[in-house]
Amino acid sequence: MNVTDAISKRRSVQKFDPEHRLSYPDIESLILAAMHCPSAFNIQHWRFVAVESPQIREQLKSTAWGQPQVTDAGVLMLVCVDLKAWDKSPERYWENAEAKVRESMVKGMRGYYRNDQLAERDDALRSGAMAAMTIMLKAQDIGYDSCVVACDYAAAAKIINLPNDHAICMMLTIGKRLEDAYPRPGMLRLEDVLITDTFK
Amino acid sequence: MNVTDAISKRRSVQKFDPEHRLSYPDIESLILAAMHCPSAFNIQHWRFVAVESPQIREQLKSTAWGQPQVTDAGVLMLVCVDLKAWDKSPERYWENAEAKVRESMVKGMRGYYRNDQLAERDDALRSGAMAAMTIMLKAQDIGYDSCVVACDYAAAAKIINLPNDHAICMMLTIGKRLEDAYPRPGMLRLEDVLITDTFK
Repeated sequence: MNVTDAISKRRSVQKFDPEHRLSYPDIESLILAAMHCPSAFNIQHWRFVAVESPQIREQLKSTAWGQPQVTDAGVLMLVCVDLKAWDKSPERYWENAEAKVRESMVKGMRGYYRNDQLAERDDALRSGAMAAMTIMLKAQDIGYDSCVVACDYAAAAKIINLPNDHAICMMLTIGKRLEDAYPRPGMLRLEDVLITDTFK
Repeated sequence: MNVTDAISKRRSVQKFDPEHRLSYPDIESLILAAMHCPSAFNIQHWRFVAVESPQIREQLKSTAWGQPQVTDAGVLMLVCVDLKAWDKSPERYWENAEAKVRESMVKGMRGYYRNDQLAERDDALRSGAMAAMTIMLKAQDIGYDSCVVACDYAAAAKIINLPNDHAICMMLTIGKRLEDAYPRPGMLRLEDVLITDTFK
């Protein structure tokens, strides 16, 4: 599928075929796509939890106000981020670079995040959200639909044993569409969102 | 361009043709693509500042440690987010929905964000980062390359008169590539980032 169609045809589908499960190669292709996203200092904060267990999905449904898509979709994907990834063997993010570059990047990230928990969180969420968007577009490409699911992140974190130094960036459902999404409920206009040079 | 190629060929290009500027229709097509992204409660937090003025780009270059791409790229795009968009006529985000749905969504977002500034910020950044990723993939589609540029957000905010209740989500350069990006410096392996069901 071409990029333009994937972007315009991606809608937040909420009714999925409960009989259809994504194969492991399908899941792998979504994650491999997401792994090509950019991230601050190439930290690749993303950790993707593909929830296949019906029992765990049932528990997670309760954190998402009972939305049936959490158990019905072909896979449930929790896009998590490691907030402290910058401090966990960061040399590996630059292993193919020259030693001088690698050392400079490692020093840079340690200096940048060490005393700034907001920057640490913001950058991790930026990475996770870019990865999530890529998963949704790749899903279109291989014949699936998707939805970002509102959930109680703290409650979901407990169920998936999320480490204390991680955060959930997004809960996604991906699968075979049974019903189209509702029409777009209200799009801002181009002139509402595109600004030239500076705010007035 | 198909989705798979756009995802794998998108690299953080840093050398752009300084003689080439994006046309307004090019910029518009990038933003129209980004406007199709999902966002929490359909709030569409994104506000895109396309910086064309050479003077302002020169000032912004100093916030990005002098990186030449800030002035050389075909356009500089600051993907900003309105943190308080949920409290600014939120009925418009659901204007095409039934009144009952619209009222429920407006009540929902006010309840969710009113006393939670972290949730407000997190969701705005999620929206902005999904929009930024979409811009980068759409740029590939229309023959351009892009880069997420590290910058001093507070300093850049002053230059573009960013309102106090907004944040800069990302600085992007987009334009005609003069040189390929460096090889990927170090990609995590699939088994480092894909987890089944729960963390151990």
